[in-house]
Amino acid sequence: MGKEKSSFNLKTPKGTRDWSGADTLIRDRIFTTISNVFRRHGGTALDTPVFELRDILAGKYGEDSKLIYDLQDQGGELCSLRYDLTVPFARWLAMNPEVRSIKRYHIAKVYRRDQPAVAKGRMREFYQCDFDVAGANFDPMVPDAEVLKIVNEVFEDLGWNGKFTIKINHRKVLDGLFEVCGVPQDKIRPISSAVDKLDKLPWADVRKEMVEDKGLPAEAADNIEKYVSKKGRKDLLEELLRDEALMANASAKQGIEEMGLLMEYLEAFGVLDTISFDLSLARGLDYYTGVIYEVVTEGSAPASSARAAPEAEKLQKSGKKAKAASGDDDDRSNDPTVGVGSIAAGGRYDNLVGMFSPKAQIPCVGISFGVDRIFSITKARIEREKNTEARNNEVDVYVMAFGGKGFTGMLKERMDICKTLWSAGVKAEFSYKLKPKLPQQFKAAETSGIPFAIILGEEELAAGQVKIKEMGLPEGHPEKEGVSVDIKNLVDEVKLRIDKKSKGTTTTNVVADATAAVADLSVKTEDAGV
Amino acid sequence: MGKEKSSFNLKTPKGTRDWSGADTLIRDRIFTTISNVFRRHGGTALDTPVFELRDILAGKYGEDSKLIYDLQDQGGELCSLRYDLTVPFARWLAMNPEVRSIKRYHIAKVYRRDQPAVAKGRMREFYQCDFDVAGANFDPMVPDAEVLKIVNEVFEDLGWNGKFTIKINHRKVLDGLFEVCGVPQDKIRPISSAVDKLDKLPWADVRKEMVEDKGLPAEAADNIEKYVSKKGRKDLLEELLRDEALMANASAKQGIEEMGLLMEYLEAFGVLDTISFDLSLARGLDYYTGVIYEVVTEGSAPASSARAAPEAEKLQKSGKKAKAASGDDDDRSNDPTVGVGSIAAGGRYDNLVGMFSPKAQIPCVGISFGVDRIFSITKARIEREKNTEARNNEVDVYVMAFGGKGFTGMLKERMDICKTLWSAGVKAEFSYKLKPKLPQQFKAAETSGIPFAIILGEEELAAGQVKIKEMGLPEGHPEKEGVSVDIKNLVDEVKLRIDKKSKGTTTTNVVADATAAVADLSVKTEDAGV
Repeated sequence: MGKEKSSFNLKTPKGTRDWSGADTLIRDRIFTTISNVFRRHGGTALDTPVFELRDILAGKYGEDSKLIYDLQDQGGELCSLRYDLTVPFARWLAMNPEVRSIKRYHIAKVYRRDQPAVAKGRMREFYQCDFDVAGANFDPMVPDAEVLKIVNEVFEDLGWNGKFTIKINHRKVLDGLFEVCGVPQDKIRPISSAVDKLDKLPWADVRKEMVEDKGLPAEAADNIEKYVSKKGRKDLLEELLRDEALMANASAKQGIEEMGLLMEYLEAFGVLDTISFDLSLARGLDYYTGVIYEVVTEGSAPASSARAAPEAEKLQKSGKKAKAASGDDDDRSNDPTVGVGSIAAGGRYDNLVGMFSPKAQIPCVGISFGVDRIFSITKARIEREKNTEARNNEVDVYVMAFGGKGFTGMLKERMDICKTLWSAGVKAEFSYKLKPKLPQQFKAAETSGIPFAIILGEEELAAGQVKIKEMGLPEGHPEKEGVSVDIKNLVDEVKLRIDKKSKGTTTTNVVADATAAVADLSVKTEDAGV
Repeated sequence: MGKEKSSFNLKTPKGTRDWSGADTLIRDRIFTTISNVFRRHGGTALDTPVFELRDILAGKYGEDSKLIYDLQDQGGELCSLRYDLTVPFARWLAMNPEVRSIKRYHIAKVYRRDQPAVAKGRMREFYQCDFDVAGANFDPMVPDAEVLKIVNEVFEDLGWNGKFTIKINHRKVLDGLFEVCGVPQDKIRPISSAVDKLDKLPWADVRKEMVEDKGLPAEAADNIEKYVSKKGRKDLLEELLRDEALMANASAKQGIEEMGLLMEYLEAFGVLDTISFDLSLARGLDYYTGVIYEVVTEGSAPASSARAAPEAEKLQKSGKKAKAASGDDDDRSNDPTVGVGSIAAGGRYDNLVGMFSPKAQIPCVGISFGVDRIFSITKARIEREKNTEARNNEVDVYVMAFGGKGFTGMLKERMDICKTLWSAGVKAEFSYKLKPKLPQQFKAAETSGIPFAIILGEEELAAGQVKIKEMGLPEGHPEKEGVSVDIKNLVDEVKLRIDKKSKGTTTTNVVADATAAVADLSVKTEDAGV
């Protein structure tokens, strides 16, 4: 913040932030990685307005509706900022009945008047990256499986192999299970939201909420306890298939069979080992109707977890649920990688589009990646691992001039060299001073981490030559003092060195060190821009 | 719109739109083209919140402040949606006094409660692409020249060579000129905004506004007329340098000399021939302090221009100015390429940052590209030129199965082939049906314009083979019926064909036809994603 006094409150609004410098580069590479996966699976981009008619958002978010930002009534329509990307997608589907099926993705900011926790990436304005498949007439669990395959590819491409787990459950299993346990029909949602807090509170507290606050018979609560501690994969599936009470319940039976089908498909996609079928996963939003999931990683768990999970479990539960439970994880820990919550979540919602247009019932299934949380973890990792300065830009070459007495500054000659480099797609800068001093020019290049200098001297220029110097070479390196090249070969000579350096290990670009996958991608993307 | 009745008003808010399908692809390629140019010149991305504290925007936009969207007071800070990207940039500079110089770019939506003209790309929510250079201690006109070089590169890379003109003027020339003509100091801004309407109104009307409405002496108006009809390049510069009255005015002299310097630098950059020094260009915003410019193209002029320009001039004036003058170009013409106004505009603003923090005076110069207008023109051109269907996605391969009696659908086998293709970065889709019919699968591929089918048959699969078929081959083509390949070679065989097709002329992707530059870029970008 500036130290100057001014009549302005010189800040961004509460819970919002500016993105600049290396942060933006890291974030944009996360976006690129994710959207490349979406496009590989046939995703097409949809972009909706940042605000919607207020009626469109009404009645979609339950209690959380109080977090919606409204626009002021300035005459005309009443509007609100979007709360997520799912409801605008459903509104778009209802408005475009000729679209019977689509895979759409959407990367954009959403708005919630929540209590911010900036260091953890929980903001009032934050990014979501959503992929959803809409369409009737699909066979059960096929698109659901592809969505989970996409989750895997995203985290693989981000370089997180083996560092994430997808917790999965099924609303129909959960509903049937509650029925079988003796939960009255009208208490199923309240009991479900109590279960949702199990990753934050000990069983005793959750039980107390169920029995004392919500009036559940003690026996029903005890029945529930047996189920919600279960997790596994095919072993759990087998166990449930043998559970005669559950299988006698139509809802549970359908859910369990669908989970079986899903696991078969995940096996065909080669990603079954990244999921955990977890009967305690409930998820808050009312509109889910089938499979639900949440992705957790190391650091998703809050630092001061109320209890250790009953089983040894490396990846603890957490997430929005933690927040919903107590809202107290705000500033308890300043480690941005701890307690950031789930890093992606989603599920099947078959009735949301019908809320806008009863005849346009289109079943949907999707996933939303929490980019700000993924960013917080990525950035913390980069900061732990970095051994060089972060860069603010991606410029390859700084074009300089030097000379002795009567030095003209060679501004137009520097402009001409830059023109040649830009035409060839080389990223280049030069000093905006007429007669810049050589040390100033070197300092500018160094500060920005620019890897190469092209140095113009009057005598060399007269001979049709300039010097290329790689910055920061060690003493004794044969090119330490730079090499003179003919101007007519300049582009080739520069590109050769940029190319060699980008493949080498001497890169000073900290982002390139982040993860091999992301860095590799970024290099290709930069080439593409040339 | 849906035909169903519902209690919702199923639409987007007035002046906003959804972006989907081919539109999004075209628009994203415009973004990529522009941001690649920005990055080539050392631009670093800045992203600010969509809303700012209300005080930050107050007093920056003059009369247009009434167009600002306010957020409702829900307790807490009073905020408004951003009106442009320039004021948030200045706010950021004032907040970050350690940043003494920067080239920043920002691509984002801005908000104005204006009268929308959807077909022309004038919306209440619309995109701007801004590039600005901030920094003290630069020598005059050097960054200004680079910004204009960037304008040239953007339109070259969009494939608009020879189809755009950059109109340039200088606020100091204009102010000095008005003084010399006898405009009293307190009338300079009002007279300037009258001149600003010359592209829409005949001189007689503008003169009437000056003399009758604004009380300018008739003689001063006549003096002004002689100047504001002038345009040219070095010829005009020479004429002004010989104008003793003008050169005796300190402001005019400084402005004219700076224009001379600018032209020298534009010559060094090889882009002098794309500018037109135009003394009638005034631009509305108060905060400009030096050079100002506006880019026009064929179609920038309104269809029903009030007059022909006095000189033969292919590229007529128009733009925001037209709108400001009468606001009547809303729906006069439905041709989206006519009257879209200027497609980019900007200038030097040396005092804006100081409005936030008096001690943080940082001179700035920049350009803002109106992407929605560039999009409208690009899309109209594509629609004129297209001879194929627009595509909604970029998928390369549709994986199908067929079989006779006892057909299993081979769902898991299709999943397995897709898995292999995705791992290799090939964009692939498959039917979500257990037992899809072959014609349905072909229709799905055709509808999406997917160029290749991979067909699984039970016998071939047992022999370790699948068939690759290029869609839409003419009768008699040797591969019309497809070619069988070993599954172990599938990725290579598919990539070979995708590559060949993308270089060939048989592409069915309408976007690829748009402009060579954009299409070429898109291919490279897609490769990068692989």
